[in-house]
Amino acid sequence: MDEVIADFLVAQRDWYRKHHGYNWVDAELAGRQAEDLAERLHVEAMEAHLHEGAFFRDLPVMTGAQSAIRRLQDVFDVFIVTAAMEYPLCCEAKYLWLKDHFPFISPLNVVFCGDKGIVAADYLLDDNLRFLRAFRGTGVMFTAPHNLHADWTPRVSGWAEAEAFFHAKAGRSVG
Amino acid sequence: MDEVIADFLVAQRDWYRKHHGYNWVDAELAGRQAEDLAERLHVEAMEAHLHEGAFFRDLPVMTGAQSAIRRLQDVFDVFIVTAAMEYPLCCEAKYLWLKDHFPFISPLNVVFCGDKGIVAADYLLDDNLRFLRAFRGTGVMFTAPHNLHADWTPRVSGWAEAEAFFHAKAGRSVG
Repeated sequence: MDEVIADFLVAQRDWYRKHHGYNWVDAELAGRQAEDLAERLHVEAMEAHLHEGAFFRDLPVMTGAQSAIRRLQDVFDVFIVTAAMEYPLCCEAKYLWLKDHFPFISPLNVVFCGDKGIVAADYLLDDNLRFLRAFRGTGVMFTAPHNLHADWTPRVSGWAEAEAFFHAKAGRSVG
Repeated sequence: MDEVIADFLVAQRDWYRKHHGYNWVDAELAGRQAEDLAERLHVEAMEAHLHEGAFFRDLPVMTGAQSAIRRLQDVFDVFIVTAAMEYPLCCEAKYLWLKDHFPFISPLNVVFCGDKGIVAADYLLDDNLRFLRAFRGTGVMFTAPHNLHADWTPRVSGWAEAEAFFHAKAGRSVG
């Protein structure tokens, strides 16, 4: 979800700016997480906030995610797999967010997990190198500032590229 | 979770008895669900109650589940996989229940899903024929009254048998 269909980073930057006055420019975030830039006490406050769960309820949707996924559903059985167990009390917020923004995805196709190695699927589209490595199928990296320097193939940047990648795999051109 | 590590049925029978006066004997429940025996309106009231989630917070633990799983963790990477998405707002209750009764299982080894076909594992111990059929590895039926007449092999009844089955698979005798 985060950094693939939910714009976690924009909300996280906003929170650090409002609460602690950070004004990071994009170049500073390339290859790094906010945790690498903020003071330890501020990172701990963010973590505590994430554990409360509400943060996940109001994240913006990543540009193009909804229409791309809706079209991909014609060809693929799309599941939303999210490492919710890192913040277990965010499950309700994440579920309600999905219901609002992706009502066309069945709750039965939603997976809240910790370790993505437990997922049996052909492809995993993820921004996180650790999850892509743990996954048993073909992991596709979704570019995010923090993973810009990660060595991984295949990689897509944004939903237009992601959709084209998967349509090509399915032997269809993007409509 | 339900009917394997959490005694859903005992709590469900109790609820139907208290609220609607049903006093089902075991023989009535063989091969059937409470939904097959209760009046439609009562079933709907139970469903509404399940959707609120709190029901799952207080379920008794199935006899022997804790000690057996703790021993199986020496040999297997044990995940708890539960079809929580049928009642999405039960996730928090289920998570807190696990934390109370199975604190030795990492939250990262917990999966809340709908379709158990998405799970990549060697074995699935489950009471539900539909989930066992959807699973891609070896499904092991955990006997419950409702599945007594289901045609499925392998099948185990209770945690002593379940533990012996898995230790035999791992080439170890039960200690």
